[in-house]
Amino acid sequence: MDFLKPGTVLDLGNIRDELVRMEDTIIFKFIERSHFPTCPTVYKENDPNLQLPDFHGSFLDWALMQSEMTHSQLRRFESPDQTPFFPSKILKPILPSIQYPRVLASYSPEINLNQEIKDVYINQITPLISRFDGESWENFGSVATIDIECLQSLSRRIHFGKFVAEAKFQADRALYSKMILEQDIDGLYQSITNSAVEEKIMERLCVKAEVYGVDPTNKEGYRKITPAYLVKIYKELVIPLTKKVEIDYLLRRLEC
Amino acid sequence: MDFLKPGTVLDLGNIRDELVRMEDTIIFKFIERSHFPTCPTVYKENDPNLQLPDFHGSFLDWALMQSEMTHSQLRRFESPDQTPFFPSKILKPILPSIQYPRVLASYSPEINLNQEIKDVYINQITPLISRFDGESWENFGSVATIDIECLQSLSRRIHFGKFVAEAKFQADRALYSKMILEQDIDGLYQSITNSAVEEKIMERLCVKAEVYGVDPTNKEGYRKITPAYLVKIYKELVIPLTKKVEIDYLLRRLEC
Ligand SMILES: N[C@@H](Cc1c[nH]c2ccccc12)C(=O)O
Ligand SMILES: N[C@@H](Cc1c[nH]c2ccccc12)C(=O)O
Repeated sequence: MDFLKPGTVLDLGNIRDELVRMEDTIIFKFIERSHFPTCPTVYKENDPNLQLPDFHGSFLDWALMQSEMTHSQLRRFESPDQTPFFPSKILKPILPSIQYPRVLASYSPEINLNQEIKDVYINQITPLISRFDGESWENFGSVATIDIECLQSLSRRIHFGKFVAEAKFQADRALYSKMILEQDIDGLYQSITNSAVEEKIMERLCVKAEVYGVDPTNKEGYRKITPAYLVKIYKELVIPLTKKVEIDYLLRRLEC
Repeated sequence: MDFLKPGTVLDLGNIRDELVRMEDTIIFKFIERSHFPTCPTVYKENDPNLQLPDFHGSFLDWALMQSEMTHSQLRRFESPDQTPFFPSKILKPILPSIQYPRVLASYSPEINLNQEIKDVYINQITPLISRFDGESWENFGSVATIDIECLQSLSRRIHFGKFVAEAKFQADRALYSKMILEQDIDGLYQSITNSAVEEKIMERLCVKAEVYGVDPTNKEGYRKITPAYLVKIYKELVIPLTKKVEIDYLLRRLEC
């Protein structure tokens, strides 16, 4: 997939390959997170023990915002597959812009579920992937750094729904236009849902968690991520959020 | 291992576990890098096509320096297992310091092989782990971000030699003191080298590259990292650099 070549981006085979590859990335990052406990203080706004001067938000928020500010200067958010957590803080690139061809509708950047993704990650995902429930003061920096990587890969995976939606729309403009005109959310949900494909994803995730989640040279060692949790995270969180992106995107598709 | 408890840090069993765990981290990061081509422009100083205002260095240098500046504010470089690539650019922490107990000799931060690690990574490692030899303009940001992660995990692995050296020194002060007094580099090399352990590392790396390097649900898919290259990187680069850290550390050990 090459974002400079629109044809490659809206090819459903390429989108699928990219989604499969992102599974590995997400699992690798979850495994890195699994070495640490939950560390609730990292996520608390203005915790008295971890107060950042002149900043309203959590330790993670501060680190994530700094990272996005730097990356925005390297044109991260010009790329159609990147969605900022702090859209109001992004800076002007210090490099000449890359002229990406238009692939998605112009309102696409407004579809941003990152706030929800962050909440779900903190409240529902970290309890499943952390080593145990507790703090580790001397590792808050490492934890926040890995959280940023987890969040950015989840965000990319979930917002990839935009490309899925656009490809599906272009494949059957008549059908989708009718449902969009009628704002038929149920119909849209049905037409973007493919249970057989979802079943396949779950099977693949089980195998990957099985293989990547334990040291292959020490199978008696502890499991870093279990198939059951990974499937739960995808089934209950990642896939529903991806569908939400797809629906939000499609509902406005006749605007342009 | 807990850097607030010196006993756990100098325990050779814990050090070994940590080194084993770092193998996984390094492999996962190499796999992420393997999706992209070499991108030589990312590493060129002041490339006319990628000029960063008011900065002398490469695109990677700029991104790495920014990342270290942010992380230094979160006290990254107070931790004895962290070594900066841009020691002159680190900022004062905006959080109260963590009082790490002294585990290593006071000159330890002066033993910094990061410049060499960066050169080796760019010139010898990226050609082995990249997808192909070439540029990918629209991915320079992603590539630099992954390079930073690769470099930081290599740096942590290699500078962990300091803990190995300190533990060995404490286990046989008389023997080491004698060699240090005589500045007997050959003797030190011999006494820190354990060929059987190195053989075990290589065997483990082969298995891990075999298992992690290919999608377990699609074994016909392309290999992201091959056992042969991974072994080469460890045997010719990672292990020799770790030993260099150990020797540099030991040679000064009677200073304090
Ligand atoms: N482990 C230490 C040092 C550290 C590692 N990576 C970091 C990134 C940012 C800040 C600190 C760190 C901590 O978490 O605090
Ligand atoms: N892939 C784009 C966008 C991007 C992803 N991650 C980034 C990190 C920094 C800068 C840009 C990016 C690029 O590499 O440019």
